[in-house]
Amino acid sequence: MKMLINVPETVVADALRGMAAAHPDLSVDVENRVVVRRDAPVAGKVGIVSGGGSGHEPLHGGFVGPGMLSAACPGEVFTSPVPDQMVRAAAAVDSGSGVLFVVKNYTGDVLNFDMAAELAEDEGIQVAKVLVHDDVAVTDSLFTAGRRGTGGTLFVEKIAGAAADEGMPLERVETIARQVSEASRSFGVALTAVSTPAKGSPTFDLPEGELELGIGIHGEPGRERRAMMTSREIADFAVAAILEDLQPRGPVLALVNGMGATPLLELYGFNAEVQRVLGERGVTVARTLVGNYVTSLDMAGCSVTLCEVDDDLLRLWDAPVSTPALRWGR
Amino acid sequence: MKMLINVPETVVADALRGMAAAHPDLSVDVENRVVVRRDAPVAGKVGIVSGGGSGHEPLHGGFVGPGMLSAACPGEVFTSPVPDQMVRAAAAVDSGSGVLFVVKNYTGDVLNFDMAAELAEDEGIQVAKVLVHDDVAVTDSLFTAGRRGTGGTLFVEKIAGAAADEGMPLERVETIARQVSEASRSFGVALTAVSTPAKGSPTFDLPEGELELGIGIHGEPGRERRAMMTSREIADFAVAAILEDLQPRGPVLALVNGMGATPLLELYGFNAEVQRVLGERGVTVARTLVGNYVTSLDMAGCSVTLCEVDDDLLRLWDAPVSTPALRWGR
Repeated sequence: MKMLINVPETVVADALRGMAAAHPDLSVDVENRVVVRRDAPVAGKVGIVSGGGSGHEPLHGGFVGPGMLSAACPGEVFTSPVPDQMVRAAAAVDSGSGVLFVVKNYTGDVLNFDMAAELAEDEGIQVAKVLVHDDVAVTDSLFTAGRRGTGGTLFVEKIAGAAADEGMPLERVETIARQVSEASRSFGVALTAVSTPAKGSPTFDLPEGELELGIGIHGEPGRERRAMMTSREIADFAVAAILEDLQPRGPVLALVNGMGATPLLELYGFNAEVQRVLGERGVTVARTLVGNYVTSLDMAGCSVTLCEVDDDLLRLWDAPVSTPALRWGR
Repeated sequence: MKMLINVPETVVADALRGMAAAHPDLSVDVENRVVVRRDAPVAGKVGIVSGGGSGHEPLHGGFVGPGMLSAACPGEVFTSPVPDQMVRAAAAVDSGSGVLFVVKNYTGDVLNFDMAAELAEDEGIQVAKVLVHDDVAVTDSLFTAGRRGTGGTLFVEKIAGAAADEGMPLERVETIARQVSEASRSFGVALTAVSTPAKGSPTFDLPEGELELGIGIHGEPGRERRAMMTSREIADFAVAAILEDLQPRGPVLALVNGMGATPLLELYGFNAEVQRVLGERGVTVARTLVGNYVTSLDMAGCSVTLCEVDDDLLRLWDAPVSTPALRWGR
């Protein structure tokens, strides 16, 4: 697979240099691999820190800024960042009000954020953690005990960031973040396999004429392979899988997400089918986001994430946000 | 090639239905294929209308909103919209202050916008036109007499939209749009060929291990094929091609654009190389935008667009904008 890179070894550092050049509002420490909003720490406000393997951009670095993440720690491609990065990020954003770690449920991430929380607390930083495990496709997978963390991460980071921005104390921000995490469900589909820079070729084999239902964002196996389906059929399948597990009584936020290589034209068409089936199933959609937000490098495919919200969560979702990839309201 | 679609015939209509569901601020006429900002016409303000073949999303529909386009007309994939759509858009956004058509230089688009301008004027709408022809790769190409219109379109639409938003009269908005168009230069590179829904397979052959320098956004041939190059080498080549034609004395806006299937991680890394070579060549970059903005469906690759700006144009670039794909400042 052809890639727009120099050598695999410098892909993450090169990207961070490119982010620094494009986004003067961010403070990018290329050597230590931490992306921090330039005005951090913000007095009286809880800091929100996330991170994970690279290759899912704009997650997480593209969500750093007022109203969302205070800092992000990018690991190597599809590899957890190390505790050192997380402690450095926590120290950079802690104003004395404490820090929330948003952790996607992958074994390495969970271990490293746990260790970082201990180290940060040794340095006198109060730390809370919330686990995101929204992917209903499979329980226990490559890299994961329990459900994988995928698209729901965006909802948790946005709403926790808004709660922090309003000056809520750490305990309250943590409670809200957990509420969002527990109210989120995702299901993903791959049309093609992903190629990592280190491997240089597809990490699994997905023949022409087939798709994989329930794919993970690192190409981890899903539920099943089938002959290629239409957009309508995929929407039916993905939404049904989510609604088996979440029966929303209130309105939902909907993320119709591209895996990276699927054209936006197709994603919008897929959104029409997702909205249709949600309507048929009696689910009210309060807000919809369509685009490439939680990606898997060059994988073609899509995912659907729903998050049940009450008035408070919806207000926090609508609150101003100003990051490279998500921006509205100010 | 696998696609996330129902059938090729409904791809554009499906996408418009999905846009309508995602963006309540837009008024989307699916049947007549016109996307209009919901508050149009805006009293006392010039309307800005653009359009072109679908397959380049978020261009143009994703740029409709306060501070940018008043309306967009999407054609079939890689096919000009028809004059009827353009006249309908003009009528929807004209407040009596006139309408500017932003036209990418492709034979079909130019003919149809010319015809639409005549028809609109017959209906009493004052129309001005600006042609975007920023691609330095080749003169005369498939579908084009003269240079192709590509990434520079984003700069023209944003800055013309800001000028209109400030209440400038049509003649002045047109002058500014033309100034931006003439100050913009682009160069694009393909790592893979594009597949259209109608064809269902790549529209040209680009072997593994080769890239095409100077590609068009419909996969039109570029300057030459070469063995695969590094990100650094591609940046050197693209920027050199642009600077052969534009010797900026003032600062530039830089768009580091993905063709659709290139991961954002790679685009940011490529941006680092673009910034390096611009620095070496003594070009001052005032603002940088990195992402998939003027795409070619599932093509992997990138383009660089530079636009020389003075203080006035920079102020208009920085002015608030609120569209699905470009949003800042309010």
